[in-house]
Parts: sequence; structure tokens; C-alpha cells
Amino acid sequence: MFENLKVKDVMTKEVVTIPPTEDVVFAFEKLMKYKIGSLPVLFQDKLVGIVTATDLGHNLILDKYELGTTVEKIMVKDVTVIGPEEDLIQAVKKMNPSHSNGIINQLVVVEDDEVKGIISDGDIIKAIEV
Amino acid sequence: MFENLKVKDVMTKEVVTIPPTEDVVFAFEKLMKYKIGSLPVLFQDKLVGIVTATDLGHNLILDKYELGTTVEKIMVKDVTVIGPEEDLIQAVKKMNPSHSNGIINQLVVVEDDEVKGIISDGDIIKAIEV
Repeated sequence: MFENLKVKDVMTKEVVTIPPTEDVVFAFEKLMKYKIGSLPVLFQDKLVGIVTATDLGHNLILDKYELGTTVEKIMVKDVTVIGPEEDLIQAVKKMNPSHSNGIINQLVVVEDDEVKGIISDGDIIKAIEV
Repeated sequence: MFENLKVKDVMTKEVVTIPPTEDVVFAFEKLMKYKIGSLPVLFQDKLVGIVTATDLGHNLILDKYELGTTVEKIMVKDVTVIGPEEDLIQAVKKMNPSHSNGIINQLVVVEDDEVKGIISDGDIIKAIEV
């Protein structure tokens, strides 16, 4: 179905990111502004976490964050990553609930300790030849 | 890959909906509260539109809506629907940008003029046997 495709063929290469010290309200505004589902958190160019629109929106609406909460306080630190040269089916596997640990709609694409892209379930659906 | 699966096998059956007269701010809060990507808009139990978290969030953050804007003013009226008995690959096809007209991350499942469910790209990814 997409046997010959690699992660790099489908991923979004222009990744919007955020520093750990940013306010969660600003992070949410950034997600909404760019219409994206998650923001990788970078500290000195290294991936240290991820925040999702779903979680931030849910907690902000329900008033679960104290005023001034920063990204680093609430980010998911155990980020599921994948390499750009891996087969697309590996991305599907990592997004599968039985293999993942929470963040399953988007994977951060990392190579040599550097963020190269991001890949979402929607990106994969669009890659399926129909 | 999922040749034997039908839409009804994968769709979410408990659909959260909203009436056309509701305020867009309330619609957005509902989307965030339930952690969902879109809300089918129902008038007298009939599907009349859809609103997405992406569009509402983007326009609210950028202050594009006048105060008191209702769902019916901004909803997408041309909703892409699918039947519960259709093959899953048909859902993939409808989500593909070359076949769809905008709302491609979620399809409303309709049978006999009644909303039976909703299916997202994430639901489909999870259904792929890996």
C-alpha cells in the first residue's frame, strides 16, 4: 500500500517548535495560529519534549493550569521519535496504541540528534495510494 | 492491509454534536473539553454542517470572529459523509486531498439521513494491521 515510501517522503519538513520556558498559553496560541497538532520542545537545539493541542486545549479550557505555567512543567518528556530513512509502515506501527505510550497522532522525525521533521496520522493517510 | 474492515468497525459511535445556534466560543470549548477534532452540526436531528477545532481555534486566536458569532455563520455546509457499510478504503479515498473538498481529517458517518458515527484519520491508522 505504501511499501516503497519512507518517512522523509511524507513528513513535514518545516517544523514549528517552542522553548521549554515559554508560557503554555503562548504555546497554545502558536498551535492554533499555525493549525498544527503538536509542538516539539527544543532546548539548545535538542528535543526535550512535546506538547499537543489536544492536551493544552483540554487543560486550559478546564482551568487546570496555574497562571504562568511553562511548557517544561507540562510537556511529555518521553517523545516517540522515528528516523527519516525508516519505512512509512514503521511510523504506522509506532502510532498504533499497542506500541505507543500516549502521543500517537504525531511522531517527531530525528536524525543525528537533530529534529528533521514531523509526521502525522493525516500525512500517512494522504500517502496511501487509492 | 485493511481489506475486510468496514467504516462501522472503526468509527466512533458516540458522536458529540452541536446545534447551529450555539456560540462559536462554546463550540470550541466543547471540542477542547472532549478532546475531539470536529463537531457535526445538527438541526432537528439532521446533519447541516461541521465545525473543526483547527478552524475555530485559528480564527478565535486571531480574533477573526465578531462577538456572538454562531456556529451556523461559520460552519462548513458541504460535509463529506460516508456510509457505515462502506469499506474502510473508501474512507481513505475520501480523505485524500485529490478527492475531498477541505474537511479531510474526519468524515461523518451517515445512514438513512441519520448520523451514526464519525471516523478520523487517527482511527484508520490504528486499524492498519502491523
